[in-house]
Amino acid sequence: MIESFLFGFPRTTFTKQPSTSGSASPPPPPSKQMAGSIDMMLRDLNLEKVESLPEDFDPTTVIKDPVPPIAHDSSGLNGGHSVNGKEKPREIVLGRNVHTSCHEVTEPDADDDVTGEREAYMASVLARYRKSLLERTKHHLGYPYNLDFDYGALSQLQHFSINNLGDPFIESNYGVHSRQFEVGVLDWFARLWELEKNEYWGYITNCGTEGNLHGILVGREVFPDGILYASHESHYSIFKAARMYRMDCEKVNTLISGEIDCEDFKAKLRLHKDKPAIINVNIGTTVKGAVDDLDLVIKTLEEIGFTHDRFYIHCDGALFGLMMPFVKLAPKVSFKKPIGSVSVSGHKFVGCPMPCGVQITRLEHINALSRNVEYLASRDATIMGSRNGHAPLFLWYTLNRKGYRGFQKEVQKCLRNAHYLKGRLTSAGIGAMLNELSSTVVFERPQDEEFTRKWQLACQGNIAHVVVMPNITIDKLDDFVNELIEKRAVWYETGKLQSPPCIASELGNSNCLCVLHK
Amino acid sequence: MIESFLFGFPRTTFTKQPSTSGSASPPPPPSKQMAGSIDMMLRDLNLEKVESLPEDFDPTTVIKDPVPPIAHDSSGLNGGHSVNGKEKPREIVLGRNVHTSCHEVTEPDADDDVTGEREAYMASVLARYRKSLLERTKHHLGYPYNLDFDYGALSQLQHFSINNLGDPFIESNYGVHSRQFEVGVLDWFARLWELEKNEYWGYITNCGTEGNLHGILVGREVFPDGILYASHESHYSIFKAARMYRMDCEKVNTLISGEIDCEDFKAKLRLHKDKPAIINVNIGTTVKGAVDDLDLVIKTLEEIGFTHDRFYIHCDGALFGLMMPFVKLAPKVSFKKPIGSVSVSGHKFVGCPMPCGVQITRLEHINALSRNVEYLASRDATIMGSRNGHAPLFLWYTLNRKGYRGFQKEVQKCLRNAHYLKGRLTSAGIGAMLNELSSTVVFERPQDEEFTRKWQLACQGNIAHVVVMPNITIDKLDDFVNELIEKRAVWYETGKLQSPPCIASELGNSNCLCVLHK
Repeated sequence: MIESFLFGFPRTTFTKQPSTSGSASPPPPPSKQMAGSIDMMLRDLNLEKVESLPEDFDPTTVIKDPVPPIAHDSSGLNGGHSVNGKEKPREIVLGRNVHTSCHEVTEPDADDDVTGEREAYMASVLARYRKSLLERTKHHLGYPYNLDFDYGALSQLQHFSINNLGDPFIESNYGVHSRQFEVGVLDWFARLWELEKNEYWGYITNCGTEGNLHGILVGREVFPDGILYASHESHYSIFKAARMYRMDCEKVNTLISGEIDCEDFKAKLRLHKDKPAIINVNIGTTVKGAVDDLDLVIKTLEEIGFTHDRFYIHCDGALFGLMMPFVKLAPKVSFKKPIGSVSVSGHKFVGCPMPCGVQITRLEHINALSRNVEYLASRDATIMGSRNGHAPLFLWYTLNRKGYRGFQKEVQKCLRNAHYLKGRLTSAGIGAMLNELSSTVVFERPQDEEFTRKWQLACQGNIAHVVVMPNITIDKLDDFVNELIEKRAVWYETGKLQSPPCIASELGNSNCLCVLHK
Repeated sequence: MIESFLFGFPRTTFTKQPSTSGSASPPPPPSKQMAGSIDMMLRDLNLEKVESLPEDFDPTTVIKDPVPPIAHDSSGLNGGHSVNGKEKPREIVLGRNVHTSCHEVTEPDADDDVTGEREAYMASVLARYRKSLLERTKHHLGYPYNLDFDYGALSQLQHFSINNLGDPFIESNYGVHSRQFEVGVLDWFARLWELEKNEYWGYITNCGTEGNLHGILVGREVFPDGILYASHESHYSIFKAARMYRMDCEKVNTLISGEIDCEDFKAKLRLHKDKPAIINVNIGTTVKGAVDDLDLVIKTLEEIGFTHDRFYIHCDGALFGLMMPFVKLAPKVSFKKPIGSVSVSGHKFVGCPMPCGVQITRLEHINALSRNVEYLASRDATIMGSRNGHAPLFLWYTLNRKGYRGFQKEVQKCLRNAHYLKGRLTSAGIGAMLNELSSTVVFERPQDEEFTRKWQLACQGNIAHVVVMPNITIDKLDDFVNELIEKRAVWYETGKLQSPPCIASELGNSNCLCVLHK
């Protein structure tokens, strides 16, 4: 379900399109490409200290023509997928097939270094790309990414291959790392979620999914025969984890708000009282931004008779894990409660050029995990081995500049702006929902794909959402609502479409303003 | 075994060290920090269009003091791990504990914006850090990372939050992505490994481990009851995959070169003739840079009676996957052979500021995989969900500049320089080994941790290695060997240590130059 939200376009099979102007022209035939290049290569090699080479080295071990033949493509078009001259529908279910507009990598001509043509071509591709990024960044509303950041002070570090190989707390022999920043960031989050420095373990991940994969894995290692419980509206990575790890998984119903339905949770728990429970608690669901009631989940477990040594709770705080601590009424995410791990994304509320996240768990669990990995002579407790050393620098930079108080201010602004958006939508007769602790405004899906793409809205079934991040201003929201109102007038009042969709099944009768429910 | 190589320092437990000058001073007490900040925050909020807010919004839903109490630390020292005032050995096995030297994130003072002190402090930390990175990059030899790159042309893109959410071939509604570059890079690799555009699927990963996790997962989905076979010298991520995915795993012996021992493989296969086989083939092992003989592996499978529909081969080409195609004598990695997937790292031979990799597999396998994921309404075929959109740009840039011929030239240079290094070591009486198809020179482990750290050598047991990457010049190798010779004179000739270690068990008698074998 949630998956279709992330890739929620009409399912079309691939239809061939002509190459766009952005794509490279096809490379010249190999015969031309080769002209002179071997000679040049040999000349270059003479610049090496050849006299020092051992005699048993055979230079013929290097093959002569390194350029592989171009893969057979009988259509003759760049990126076209056809077989025997007939269009063969690509078997992947596609929105827009990127092959039709990709920037092909082409083999340099032998004289490219001299003419500078290649540099010029690449610079022009990059300049056009930068322009499109500016345009797309300006109109983005649908995904929970804070696009407002300035890391100019860090651009000097892009020249280094920074890799936090392995455990954040164990310095690798590879010296070009940023662990001293990573651990500073981890300490900050451990403090936010109330776990002592000597009791936590964690690391900076590549994205929210890696945090979830890690949290569920730790849960499974603690309880190898545990059942995974997760609400239907959990992020798809939770169910991916269940499948990857070969775990039994019970999907729990949700309330109309998107929160986990603890009555149904109770019933499902009763079915498996003999097995330990591993529970995913959503601190902000993907679609509706609903926050599961952590305290009620724990109470439900206790009522059914699960003692604290028979369950493991992972909190998926991908988006709101960093917002909830600053909202008074929110169920507090705290390691003073019987939870096992919390993950949050770094590219969402904080903002970062590339995806990243933070995973914090109890040191005791990691010790258990690493004891279990007997055949490994050292600790391998992260999912990935090599780890992006730039992400910790971005996070460290923003956390240091903003501090807890800066984030509080931004949370407040986002909640206010989300209320503003919901108010403007309903005033205009557009059904919408905003959960109390959320900055995710859910509303009827626009009837036009072009509009959806322009504003980069994420859609599922009859609903779409805007996630109000710190970079979303009132002005931008006004622009969006005004355009939506204009477009709706065209969609629904020129007779092409009868009326706005009913969204009562998704958002409840009270939030639907269709002809039946208004 | 391999794990201990990556983290191969003496196992010491944590001993407390005073804060280094690089770490931040502890934050002022909360009372001082709070002075004036609430007032300022309220003043800032008045700049918003408050008149537009809905009346039911309750600003008290934001908590008053967002700064969590500092976690209890009775040692009083930054980062110290002690309990009840007594030193408690941290249970993690540590090289150097990063907590003692980390750059703490501190809460800004209310007047930091005015005084500029925070900016100045952060700039000084970053400047010192940059200097240390320069120094460490200069002396690095041990890990297979090409540190020689110039991505200045791409620094303009660091301002964007580029995310290739989901499948590379299906354009997400999130507009700030780089799929058009990613698919160009994937096409280039598919061509290198001889798979047609309409027959492959792939994506740009976060590192070599993600490629291996993906390859083994695809293998398991194709053969749910398959047995995983991997040589002892395979990368640790292969065994991590087996554990994560709950697969049965047979470890196969290796030859002294580090290659898989196909006689032992044959014997192990015979034990499980009734189950399909999933095989990890190393295109360059981590420690010795040994290249498993892909053709012999396939021949062995066929001899035991495994037809092509009963095995799946994943080629872990983390390092040499991009080098072997340019070496004439190497067993060719090609999808014209019955293999299922190939992965390679992008930050190794290509060079990239952050770890990344490429995974290529057959489209038919991904279709099978996605059919299997029935409860998902769309394709979720990558391990990670959000994906770094900058990595494809770095790869695209380098591939376009160098081309297949540029890589061939660099491979040739690395192989020559590796031979040069091995020659210099053995001339100096230092036992060393260099596999024919490899640029990894393995030799006796230096007896001094300071020397090992300076040159960032990776060590295992009695051996260490240098991986000759394109940025490793003859001059740098000369510096290294000259210093090693000098140091050895001190270690072994001043009587502190008797003689160099015997490395015959690791590298064979003929490569050992200890007192027994020289």
